[in-house]
Amino acid sequence: MKRLFLAVTAVAGLAMSLPAAAQFQKPEDAIKYRQSAFQVMSAHFGRIGAMANGRVPFDAKVAQDNMAIVTVVHKLPFTAFGEGTDKGLPQRAKPEVWKEAAKFKAAGEKMQAEVAKLDAAVKAGNLDAIKAAFGAAGGSCKACHDDFRAEKYSSN
Amino acid sequence: MKRLFLAVTAVAGLAMSLPAAAQFQKPEDAIKYRQSAFQVMSAHFGRIGAMANGRVPFDAKVAQDNMAIVTVVHKLPFTAFGEGTDKGLPQRAKPEVWKEAAKFKAAGEKMQAEVAKLDAAVKAGNLDAIKAAFGAAGGSCKACHDDFRAEKYSSN
Repeated sequence: MKRLFLAVTAVAGLAMSLPAAAQFQKPEDAIKYRQSAFQVMSAHFGRIGAMANGRVPFDAKVAQDNMAIVTVVHKLPFTAFGEGTDKGLPQRAKPEVWKEAAKFKAAGEKMQAEVAKLDAAVKAGNLDAIKAAFGAAGGSCKACHDDFRAEKYSSN
Repeated sequence: MKRLFLAVTAVAGLAMSLPAAAQFQKPEDAIKYRQSAFQVMSAHFGRIGAMANGRVPFDAKVAQDNMAIVTVVHKLPFTAFGEGTDKGLPQRAKPEVWKEAAKFKAAGEKMQAEVAKLDAAVKAGNLDAIKAAFGAAGGSCKACHDDFRAEKYSSN
């Protein structure tokens, strides 16, 4: 069943500083967009993590280049959780994203605050600070996933 | 059949200035990443296009905010067309991406050059210049799609 797609985000406060928030023609577009933005974010966050966890040698310049991408993309997904985007494509967003919108918004803001701290540590080039900040930022991802991301994709 | 995945891009020249190019564990990761980066790029490019084409009122600040995202993400997909990433997930990349690597690289560079011109026009806030530069940038997308993007997704 098609629903009316309201071009209003459930997390308007979070998205307020973002350009043309929720400019999606169809729910499918919003779902694809947020999944894509999370994907890109995760790839670059992971490259910083590989250094933080000692899997690859620390290179301050590489960390900064990856962090610059994380900084740009990490807010983008939250512009695309508008009402009516709970259906349209297979996805892992739980109904709680919309049912507990205030809690979801807070979880997103927590992540953004931790990413800002990680950015400061990366800019300072201090590996110990990066390790600590990466752990906290990763924890904020996990906390949100635990509450708002399902194990499996929905069927539509 | 699984192939050895070489962590070397077919378009190394294009990706040279990018952070940790081709740091993908599996071909699937690279495919998902490049599809995601194109998706995010396209959404924000489209928002500038909506203004260039008069579908929404021109707002210089909104154009600049969207352009800042395009500028960061438009080079990312080209870090993820490494050898061996022609299989692994359904995708629209034609075999020509790897068979005609030099031509593909040139097409990517053409797009990057046009995006740089669009960025200049957007920064200047000149709608006529934006219209012209958007048309040329869109044309560079289309030219590459015509040669290197299939109509339908592959089956794997």
